[in-house]
Amino acid sequence: MFDLKDLCEKSAAAKYEAGLLTTEKKNEVLICAAKMLKQESAYLLAENEKDLANAKENSISEGMQDRLRLTKERIEAMSEGLVQVASLPDPIGELLEEFERPNGLKIKKIRVPMGVIGIIFESRPNVTADAFALTFKSGNCVILKGGKEAINSNKAIVKVLKKALEQNGVNSDVLALIESTDRETTAQFMKMKEYVDVLIPRGGAGLIRAVVENSNIPVIETGTGNCHVYIDKDADPKMAVDILFNAKTQRISVCNCAESLLVHKDIAKDILPAIKESLDKKNVELRGDDISIEILGDCVVPATEEDYGKEYLDYILSVKTVGSVDEAIAHINKYNTHHSECIVTENAETAEKFLNGVDAACVYVNASTRFTDGFEFGFGAEIGISTQKLHARGPMGLRELTSYKYKVYGNGQIRQ
Amino acid sequence: MFDLKDLCEKSAAAKYEAGLLTTEKKNEVLICAAKMLKQESAYLLAENEKDLANAKENSISEGMQDRLRLTKERIEAMSEGLVQVASLPDPIGELLEEFERPNGLKIKKIRVPMGVIGIIFESRPNVTADAFALTFKSGNCVILKGGKEAINSNKAIVKVLKKALEQNGVNSDVLALIESTDRETTAQFMKMKEYVDVLIPRGGAGLIRAVVENSNIPVIETGTGNCHVYIDKDADPKMAVDILFNAKTQRISVCNCAESLLVHKDIAKDILPAIKESLDKKNVELRGDDISIEILGDCVVPATEEDYGKEYLDYILSVKTVGSVDEAIAHINKYNTHHSECIVTENAETAEKFLNGVDAACVYVNASTRFTDGFEFGFGAEIGISTQKLHARGPMGLRELTSYKYKVYGNGQIRQ
Repeated sequence: MFDLKDLCEKSAAAKYEAGLLTTEKKNEVLICAAKMLKQESAYLLAENEKDLANAKENSISEGMQDRLRLTKERIEAMSEGLVQVASLPDPIGELLEEFERPNGLKIKKIRVPMGVIGIIFESRPNVTADAFALTFKSGNCVILKGGKEAINSNKAIVKVLKKALEQNGVNSDVLALIESTDRETTAQFMKMKEYVDVLIPRGGAGLIRAVVENSNIPVIETGTGNCHVYIDKDADPKMAVDILFNAKTQRISVCNCAESLLVHKDIAKDILPAIKESLDKKNVELRGDDISIEILGDCVVPATEEDYGKEYLDYILSVKTVGSVDEAIAHINKYNTHHSECIVTENAETAEKFLNGVDAACVYVNASTRFTDGFEFGFGAEIGISTQKLHARGPMGLRELTSYKYKVYGNGQIRQ
Repeated sequence: MFDLKDLCEKSAAAKYEAGLLTTEKKNEVLICAAKMLKQESAYLLAENEKDLANAKENSISEGMQDRLRLTKERIEAMSEGLVQVASLPDPIGELLEEFERPNGLKIKKIRVPMGVIGIIFESRPNVTADAFALTFKSGNCVILKGGKEAINSNKAIVKVLKKALEQNGVNSDVLALIESTDRETTAQFMKMKEYVDVLIPRGGAGLIRAVVENSNIPVIETGTGNCHVYIDKDADPKMAVDILFNAKTQRISVCNCAESLLVHKDIAKDILPAIKESLDKKNVELRGDDISIEILGDCVVPATEEDYGKEYLDYILSVKTVGSVDEAIAHINKYNTHHSECIVTENAETAEKFLNGVDAACVYVNASTRFTDGFEFGFGAEIGISTQKLHARGPMGLRELTSYKYKVYGNGQIRQ
């Protein structure tokens, strides 16, 4: 019988070993695991086939089946991901600060691993390898809980990764997969505070809400995005049209795409027709306020209150006209998910007001919101985008999977 | 009728204003509030008298009554605390990092406030002024929920602080006190995720556990400390005795005092008698393992498993002999609360092994654990000691009450 407590205990017991591994050893494991994933392609594809057969039997949607599917190319990409993480600098042991107190105490603030990281994710099996690479390189143990649709694929990937750990003489308990996929196990896992230092849910808003509501482990919320583009009266019109088109349509299913357009009233009449023309190329549905309907006509559906708060992840965009940058800021702070927000303007003062006033992880002037991404920020990798303010905010790479400790060096100091 | 939702909404509405206040304005408010607290001493003492009368009526312990009590001196200390916080550097707006991407995007990582901070605390009314000063200086709004024993004192202090805000033209909603002290209100407050960005419980282990279990707001856990002093075989015996005496007895009711002694077997016979002699001055009760009983005799009570996990906050110390630094590390990692841990040794290699291997916010070599404190670390102030790894660890000053955002400057960049 599957024993969750036993699994968590083993991870916790392995965390000191994981935290003390040398950079060389960690990279060796990652490179070795990358090779082995490719060598074991046939095995991985066969196990993945079982998940796909189940998915068909259970009439799971085509989109979901595509997310589930492993191919030779996807296995190679997964393998390449491990090699990339091996090439990144090791964050552990970094000296963050150093100071001396008047009593002679020398204090060093040093970057250390979190310990045991729990990750609850949905269908894509490549997350298994990604999450292992990032948590392992940052000196952590990881406990993965994937979706039940991908259980055979996840088990196979973990089996290969564990073999790579063992071949390199590393305790394979640094990586664990929760093989039981029922809801009770997930609920139990969220209460394993004694063993798990932080829990990261990766998936839809429903999953994230469930974790936040039920976990007693500290949580990092990731990835819901109701992102806005605000076109100021001082915007360059062509740039505005291009940025909005990119932010809305370059990839519709991701958290950093735009879901809502705000336009300054002074420029609305001039720019909305050009925006409509551009978005028509992708058949984007517009849901707007009275003024935008007045300008563009009946092709604009009247927007409801709900529209302004919605993450469509679809070819739909809400539109609102505003009288000032202050009104734009207030609207965004009322409806956004603190992810990514953009102003298009040539006025530096207005831009700075927007960047300071809007409450979001990433605030842009004259660039697409689609850049909120660990790779685009140059972090080399990403475990997710944090939309909360505690701990990490925005793209989370290796550093964001770490904590710190204070090492204090004395020569007999006692407190008076 | 008291309306918690309305109060939280008002705080959330004030947070952008709070975050944009200038350093000068914030300092003016703090200095003004400091003066007003002194001017209003008579009023504060009269209101405090009501709480003290209730406490007596409800037969509340002498210790608790002392914690509740305001005096002229304590009000002056509270006032002085505000002046000190005014003198600290403003963390908001600090440029943490700056980098440029190959596509020309300029990215600045800037320190920003958390937003709305909730603080749930127990009886000492001076926390009200302290917490306001630290959260206000770091650009946050604060919602305070104090214990019911201190409600009249807390209301009076908040009234004076709000007057200072108003006199300086600052929205007094940046400070709020939950005036209803029943349990249902506290339970409701812990679910106000929509309005509150972070929740900090200050108080005993029971309070902290209740908040962690019930809150859907991200929590920073503070302040339970089962701290150890490990005396290595290569310790300077006199230094070891002095550090232990200080860590155990200098102030017994605080989270950074020592609760457990580990001694290397090779040195136990020599040093335990000297330790006993020193601790006898304060009548410290020892609860030890077989070897320590063998050395010191029947004056040592046999320690139970429970003793090793206990935060006594009393003149009691558990004692265990170990065969190596590794055994000391394993024992500490099994029983500690990740607060503060000390090794006494002249061997630099052993020291480093201990500092790296022990999982705690602050790890000491040859100094008392009592130095884990925002003032002692030079932070100038402290809201508490974090014992978790997410966000802040160890003493939390102004910087630890902040988050960051990425400001991204482009000139039309779109994602390919």
